[in-house]
Amino acid sequence: MNVVELIRKKRNGLELASAELRYIIEGYVKGTVPDYQVSSFLMATYFRGMTKDETREFTRLMLHSGDVLDLQSIPGVKVDKHSTGGVGDKISLPLAPIVAACGVPVPMISGRGLGHTGGTLDKLESIPGFRTDLSIEEYKAVIADLGLVMIGQTKEIAPADKKMYALRDVTATVECIPLIAGSIMSKKLAEGIDALVLDVKTGRGAFMQTYERSLELAKALVEIGTGFGKRTVGFITNMDQPLGYAIGNWVETEESIACLHDAGPADVMELTYVLGGMMVVLGGKASTLDEGMARCRAAVQNGSAFEKFVALVQRQGGDVSYIHHPERYPVSRHRETITAPQDGFVTSIDSLELGLSVIGLGGGRTAVDDIIDPKAGILLKKKAGDAVRAGEVIAECRTDNSAALETLTKRIAAAYSFGTEAPKTEPLVLSIVDADGVRPFPLNR
Amino acid sequence: MNVVELIRKKRNGLELASAELRYIIEGYVKGTVPDYQVSSFLMATYFRGMTKDETREFTRLMLHSGDVLDLQSIPGVKVDKHSTGGVGDKISLPLAPIVAACGVPVPMISGRGLGHTGGTLDKLESIPGFRTDLSIEEYKAVIADLGLVMIGQTKEIAPADKKMYALRDVTATVECIPLIAGSIMSKKLAEGIDALVLDVKTGRGAFMQTYERSLELAKALVEIGTGFGKRTVGFITNMDQPLGYAIGNWVETEESIACLHDAGPADVMELTYVLGGMMVVLGGKASTLDEGMARCRAAVQNGSAFEKFVALVQRQGGDVSYIHHPERYPVSRHRETITAPQDGFVTSIDSLELGLSVIGLGGGRTAVDDIIDPKAGILLKKKAGDAVRAGEVIAECRTDNSAALETLTKRIAAAYSFGTEAPKTEPLVLSIVDADGVRPFPLNR
Repeated sequence: MNVVELIRKKRNGLELASAELRYIIEGYVKGTVPDYQVSSFLMATYFRGMTKDETREFTRLMLHSGDVLDLQSIPGVKVDKHSTGGVGDKISLPLAPIVAACGVPVPMISGRGLGHTGGTLDKLESIPGFRTDLSIEEYKAVIADLGLVMIGQTKEIAPADKKMYALRDVTATVECIPLIAGSIMSKKLAEGIDALVLDVKTGRGAFMQTYERSLELAKALVEIGTGFGKRTVGFITNMDQPLGYAIGNWVETEESIACLHDAGPADVMELTYVLGGMMVVLGGKASTLDEGMARCRAAVQNGSAFEKFVALVQRQGGDVSYIHHPERYPVSRHRETITAPQDGFVTSIDSLELGLSVIGLGGGRTAVDDIIDPKAGILLKKKAGDAVRAGEVIAECRTDNSAALETLTKRIAAAYSFGTEAPKTEPLVLSIVDADGVRPFPLNR
Repeated sequence: MNVVELIRKKRNGLELASAELRYIIEGYVKGTVPDYQVSSFLMATYFRGMTKDETREFTRLMLHSGDVLDLQSIPGVKVDKHSTGGVGDKISLPLAPIVAACGVPVPMISGRGLGHTGGTLDKLESIPGFRTDLSIEEYKAVIADLGLVMIGQTKEIAPADKKMYALRDVTATVECIPLIAGSIMSKKLAEGIDALVLDVKTGRGAFMQTYERSLELAKALVEIGTGFGKRTVGFITNMDQPLGYAIGNWVETEESIACLHDAGPADVMELTYVLGGMMVVLGGKASTLDEGMARCRAAVQNGSAFEKFVALVQRQGGDVSYIHHPERYPVSRHRETITAPQDGFVTSIDSLELGLSVIGLGGGRTAVDDIIDPKAGILLKKKAGDAVRAGEVIAECRTDNSAALETLTKRIAAAYSFGTEAPKTEPLVLSIVDADGVRPFPLNR
């Protein structure tokens, strides 16, 4: 087989056969197909897309480039959730223990933050001592014991995706739906799950900024998951403004603890219950989404979800004293407030700008080996729709980096827009996508 | 500047500023921009194209990546010809001495054959001793003395193009008009020419197989040449069947010598006179194409063109005895005839198949370091439109490679199509493109 001919075939809009895709992907992992040919193939794919068969095969090749974990010895229907990433999106932290407390095992392998959106691993690691680098054996032991485990991607999981994602990142070929879908699903399918709930964000703070693109991605993800025999349900959710009030690793963890005490922000609670409710349905512990959501609410209200989280932190080496007493956590040297410049309403908050500001405060990365300050972050005091008076505090930022403080407080202030009338509120959950198609949300449930 | 952002900008269909293109091209030559980013940029360019400004700037950057020769000390308007390459296209060999004999200096830097089309250098080197690797100083001395020089691309000429062309070749990004145009023109503009005639082939044996694509390329080439202040005229010419009767390095040289004795095939003579006539016009030695063509014909008929070729061969180290006595040239071990399977007419000859067959006979390359057998080739005895009888010889192939003989004679036979009626004949020269636009050919001259 000749790689140049395969690139040309894709470039000309033809479908690659399974053996042809295998030749490229396996050759790339082995090093017989050089990166300059793969990057040209990826760019051709950006323009030409992939058919459903190609996308499934591409995912399968990446999945089988590494270990596919087997959790069949663990009883129950194992269900995970994946989010395409948003600003202030800490949903995994309250969600996983809630669902586990409902009796559905949650084996969760998460990523780090890079770019303007945070990562679940970084949030968990803001808890002193918390280990996300468990071995596969430890991973299996924790899920067996607790019905819950939260770790980072190991080198055994989908190494082809790891190598290819790094190449896509430096060749402007990230924003391509079949490549994104294959990358996400190859990692999730390797976890040993039986079913998957997807949170596909849309809007200014999301990876996919339009509803149409988000829907296209959600369909591709559901198509792949279903094709691999896993029940897969996607939700398209709004990311026009940050989720909740906290943006930054520890402050988001703290907000997640509040959720587990039934004291979280309304939007975070709502999204956690919708996604968690569906996980409970897929896990066979409820027959309708309403019933699943009710079970999740009960697990919060009876304290079992919080207890599950404490058990997880304890088991993975974290200091539970901060979970019981978040107020004891160290505080940044600088805490600066931002105030409203006028009377009126907050009409919108630019999530992207806030996500980028958190990086400047020390709470994110611009390169993979940057060290994060877990304390750094932004606490919103007002969100879109809130009435404000001139001079009233709208946000607070926290950092040890005094040099960036002045610029960043201005940047955060500029991310807010104001008007004289309350803005139209957008629903948080827009639609649901599964093997049967797309329906608007809320469902007639 | 961030290369990923520049790739993304091109990918999204935006125009790159001059400094942005410079960052990529200069970085690539220096090695600070890696090939995997350049190949992804090239594939994005394949899909998005380049604006006229980008194409000119791209050409300028490749041109100035190396030496730009200065021939101002040589009197006269220096004119060269470039062909996009065709099967049996030996036009440069008779053309250059004819035009030089008309008093127009021709400084010609040519390429080697790769793929199904031959290269002028390989044809010249079939003459024992002929040196195409003159230094720049020797090049200048020969053009000063003879008004004619024919060499290969030196390492000083457009090194960025050399590096990028090699990358395009292995990443399926060759077939892209602004990239092709920039590659051709950066090398031609480096020669020190004042004007340029282009032969853009179209049809089954050409790089551009449709008239529309060939016209697009011709326009891009003329646009660039004109933009650099060089009078540039392009002809779109038919490459549905091979030019002349000879395909292969020495047999084409031999056919070229026949042309200089006014005894060449009608199509080769016609194209040589059209292109040569225009070169004479651009060189200021005729005021109309008709007059230029008449001067070329006279230079053949009075023997001055042949004398000029002999002088060139002598000066560049070639054995002139073979120019005076081509029949003394060594002959291949195997000379196999191919016969017509039926009575009727040759309706078409697949140039591409014949070009590829010559490679198999030993007369071309599949890799840049393959060694060519200059004797190997095909001599056509019948061309499209000719009447044939069953069993009549239609072609002869010559090779030292007995192993390939049987397969290749079959392949050559299969390149011929036959019918019971004479096919419609296509004109050889289809149209002319210059700074004033496109006109059909023949002109009202």
